Amino acid sequence: MKLRNLAFAVATLGVASGVLAEIKPEDQIRYRQSVMNVMGRSFGALNAMAKGDVPYNKDAAVKNADIVLMMSGLPAPAFAPGTDKGAPTKADTKIWSEGEKFKTAYEKMVGEVKKLPAAAAEPATLKAQVADVGKACKACHDDFRLKEFRN
Amino acid sequence: MKLRNLAFAVATLGVASGVLAEIKPEDQIRYRQSVMNVMGRSFGALNAMAKGDVPYNKDAAVKNADIVLMMSGLPAPAFAPGTDKGAPTKADTKIWSEGEKFKTAYEKMVGEVKKLPAAAAEPATLKAQVADVGKACKACHDDFRLKEFRN
Repeated sequence: MKLRNLAFAVATLGVASGVLAEIKPEDQIRYRQSVMNVMGRSFGALNAMAKGDVPYNKDAAVKNADIVLMMSGLPAPAFAPGTDKGAPTKADTKIWSEGEKFKTAYEKMVGEVKKLPAAAAEPATLKAQVADVGKACKACHDDFRLKEFRN
Repeated sequence: MKLRNLAFAVATLGVASGVLAEIKPEDQIRYRQSVMNVMGRSFGALNAMAKGDVPYNKDAAVKNADIVLMMSGLPAPAFAPGTDKGAPTKADTKIWSEGEKFKTAYEKMVGEVKKLPAAAAEPATLKAQVADVGKACKACHDDFRLKEFRN
């Protein structure tokens, strides 16, 4: 299980595993939180357009969809074995004990996010795809993100 | 000065200013720190290749250069007026009191980063451009980033 997860992680980042091994768990935790923050800001902007809270703007929609897409693959390597603790985190330990289930949920999110940039070009398709991405985010968060930080 | 900085910020993010105004200073501070963390991780990977600490890998180099480029424009709006405090930050208050100088240093960085993806396609050009980007990063950090966090 550990080796399969690490392979998943390394393949996603596309860097030598030696580099990953040198990064401290607390820095991996901070990195995945940073990526999630950047991704969440842009997805929040798309969601606001989808809900009609802000006017639809094609350039801003596509730009934010591109940011969400680029961010979507980055956290995977930072969930490698050994990064389950080291700094306050909301990551449920099931991420590591149920690695295959986490991988499936994660990849579902990435699959939906891949459709976002094209969908962002029209208000109606944006709204529909924001809903599908949101469901994939929520499903993974419901199963693998704690409500409160743990050490 | 404030209006010019805000215009710079809004133009860079490409969203309605009404949205920006609703984001709390502490969330803007966290956001720019997140972006800097993501950018720093990818630039660190490029720097490691440039120094020969890890083998050059074209796919990884171009991917990380694309990440640095996408991140490079994102912090600007999060330095808008009113975000000089609200959470621990290393941002020097000169960012707001010397806004034009900050803008020039920031845009110098963005200008160098724009050359990174093309440069990343070859080891020699990567090495040269990593050096130029690094100088632009350092110049802005020397002038506008504190050594320690302040409240």
